[in-house]
Amino acid sequence: MRTLVKELWARGAESGAGDVELKGWVHRIRELGGVSFVMLRDRTGVGQVVVEGKVDLTLESVISVTGKPSANEKAPGGVELRAAKIDVVSRAEPDLPFPVNGDPAKIGLDIILDNRPLSLRNPKLRSIFYVQATIIETFSSWLRANGFTEMKTSKLIGSGTEGGTGLFEVEYFDTKVYLAQSPQFYKQTMVASGMERVFEVAPAYRAEKHDTPRHLNEYVSLDLEMAWIDSERDLIALEKDLLTAIFEAVRSRNGDDLAAWCATVPSPESVAASPILAHDDAIAIASSEAAKAGGGAVKKAYEISPEVERLICAWSAREHGSDLVFINEFPRRHRPFYTYPMDATRTMSFDAIFRGLEITTGGRRHNDYKALLEVLPKFGLKAEDLTDYLNVFKYGCPPHGGFAIGCERLTQKILGLTNVKEASLFPRDRKRVRP
Amino acid sequence: MRTLVKELWARGAESGAGDVELKGWVHRIRELGGVSFVMLRDRTGVGQVVVEGKVDLTLESVISVTGKPSANEKAPGGVELRAAKIDVVSRAEPDLPFPVNGDPAKIGLDIILDNRPLSLRNPKLRSIFYVQATIIETFSSWLRANGFTEMKTSKLIGSGTEGGTGLFEVEYFDTKVYLAQSPQFYKQTMVASGMERVFEVAPAYRAEKHDTPRHLNEYVSLDLEMAWIDSERDLIALEKDLLTAIFEAVRSRNGDDLAAWCATVPSPESVAASPILAHDDAIAIASSEAAKAGGGAVKKAYEISPEVERLICAWSAREHGSDLVFINEFPRRHRPFYTYPMDATRTMSFDAIFRGLEITTGGRRHNDYKALLEVLPKFGLKAEDLTDYLNVFKYGCPPHGGFAIGCERLTQKILGLTNVKEASLFPRDRKRVRP
Repeated sequence: MRTLVKELWARGAESGAGDVELKGWVHRIRELGGVSFVMLRDRTGVGQVVVEGKVDLTLESVISVTGKPSANEKAPGGVELRAAKIDVVSRAEPDLPFPVNGDPAKIGLDIILDNRPLSLRNPKLRSIFYVQATIIETFSSWLRANGFTEMKTSKLIGSGTEGGTGLFEVEYFDTKVYLAQSPQFYKQTMVASGMERVFEVAPAYRAEKHDTPRHLNEYVSLDLEMAWIDSERDLIALEKDLLTAIFEAVRSRNGDDLAAWCATVPSPESVAASPILAHDDAIAIASSEAAKAGGGAVKKAYEISPEVERLICAWSAREHGSDLVFINEFPRRHRPFYTYPMDATRTMSFDAIFRGLEITTGGRRHNDYKALLEVLPKFGLKAEDLTDYLNVFKYGCPPHGGFAIGCERLTQKILGLTNVKEASLFPRDRKRVRP
Repeated sequence: MRTLVKELWARGAESGAGDVELKGWVHRIRELGGVSFVMLRDRTGVGQVVVEGKVDLTLESVISVTGKPSANEKAPGGVELRAAKIDVVSRAEPDLPFPVNGDPAKIGLDIILDNRPLSLRNPKLRSIFYVQATIIETFSSWLRANGFTEMKTSKLIGSGTEGGTGLFEVEYFDTKVYLAQSPQFYKQTMVASGMERVFEVAPAYRAEKHDTPRHLNEYVSLDLEMAWIDSERDLIALEKDLLTAIFEAVRSRNGDDLAAWCATVPSPESVAASPILAHDDAIAIASSEAAKAGGGAVKKAYEISPEVERLICAWSAREHGSDLVFINEFPRRHRPFYTYPMDATRTMSFDAIFRGLEITTGGRRHNDYKALLEVLPKFGLKAEDLTDYLNVFKYGCPPHGGFAIGCERLTQKILGLTNVKEASLFPRDRKRVRP
């Protein structure tokens, strides 16, 4: 009967005289004064095993150890296992391409990603994905508790709604289809179907040639859509509550993972205090911040660029004590055809910027069939190319809107990772399609 | 302040003298004795609104109705709303291509799927996806409670591990990649990483030319993998517990949806009683059943065909009172290279058959590097084509295995749907790539 490392720590040395069996990976070996200390890693932690004499083990081998627990205040958890028997379940070859038990900061990102199966054995690198699991779980459970239904929609679309740029092409029997950039039109369809409130956690694809620390060509999109909103401000209020729930879940469940990265999550108070800036005001603030800082990359801001996102967040942290900023009222020319207008020039749309990085785009959508028919030509689109989409609105659709959170970006910024690729288990970029 | 239909039913007519506002879709209109009965559909139900005289409304228009609740034992929920004011929020065009409020059995499947945005407004058709949401939620929550971590892996793979057949090709910048048939190798990677127990809910792709009531080219795969199993029997035991949890969740949360389809879920006792048949015994039983039935499509069974799946389930229902059968010990020649051998001819693998349809394939996997190197040539595979995969085992991997449940097939069989496409929101088959 296997005992997990954390269970051993919880029970301590005094828990019965019986033998204990640990199973896991050889994380590290130290030999000291005729005794070997074998650090055994399982899914709950890294525990200390003490063996008389030398051991014939390779790092990363999978072993099973039986022995008696013994108190040792210098051992992790204050208890070690004095080994009576060690079985090698699966022996690792000794030619590890890099030290799995080392500090990831000393291993280059390319080595980490090229050797993903091995680098994910590093507890600090693996901890990223325990945080990500909490994000996904809390996104889903909070929305369910608020009347949303989970849906799963096709990632193979017959045509690009906004044209073919940025789409990956798939050979589909005798025809060609595309990988979906977002489930947005399906979300709208399900809102109009009467489900009213829907969410989806699924991959999304962007065939963008950028290769930057903020881009992935395949990412996990945390999507939601809801009926009966008045404007994007209803969505911003919901996202504040949703992010607060996610941050609090990470705080309470992933304390060790946050500590490994010296990271903290924003407090509920600071999320509540995050400012909502109109697009033009955000530009003005960024310009003023850039001028104060003596220029830098931005002399004067004209649009919400990555540098503007950083400037605005620095301003928000200083002026509002918040790591989060919402920017709304984007100009119509910057937003897609389906965005609901606020007036002749502005839209009911928004972005959320978290610690200097856009993590969300969303807004209210057109729900009126005739208004959509009028707006299409202005965007160079034809009604006959959008029949399936337009039929959603032809037969009655309530006012609605939604947004998406980039799961990897949120993970990255919670933990303070340098590159978004670190927050993807098996990232895909311009050049990387393996492992 | 909006009231939902179910809230109105719960409060009844007596709940305060104040006005109530319902919002939703015009589901049906009846005119009777100078009064109009407007059935209003929202995400919680279909409620009755009474209006003096005739109404100028089209079916499926979105309306907002304000009025006073009034007891009426003939109305759904025993209460109706006497309308003082009706606003048309979004007017539906009157040319509905089929009656949205009709019996889906009278609408052909092609019409249902061609007009998916409209057909999903039909409460009975939409109810399928409330059941599916419960399946996905319970699969995830049960596994989390049992030490599994949720992961999200790439659906774009550099090469087909078992060759290129059955794979959709994607144009990826200057190269070609494929849509993943399953996350199995990533699951194994994460088990070996030390996560030990992982699950994923994600799309999977099969470029099969079949167009049958049991096939989809894109489906939602409910996948799990776990370390430290002895054989496939550990996985079967886990799947019994997992399916029991899913069935009980559907029973308790989706009573209305089950009733709409005259469907029931298996009891925990019947799942516990489901037999485990060795592959050869299953074949023998199917042959004997076919002979008893006077032949039919199968005279004598040689492999687990769809007809054999039906025969075995009929036998299990009669002999064991169970809708579920597990078949294990598949011959080595019927299973992929990574399947763990039981002896010279048989494997530690299994299928689960539910109500006549295979819903799961799984098994223990090879975890020994040298054994894998030996087995590859027998399957016509080369180690140099599988470097990323083999490195998982080269550096220590515990015994492990896993399985996947086809989400749409489980949904289909719980509700007794004729075709698996009915259980996919936006199904993709040989000819269908829209809506």
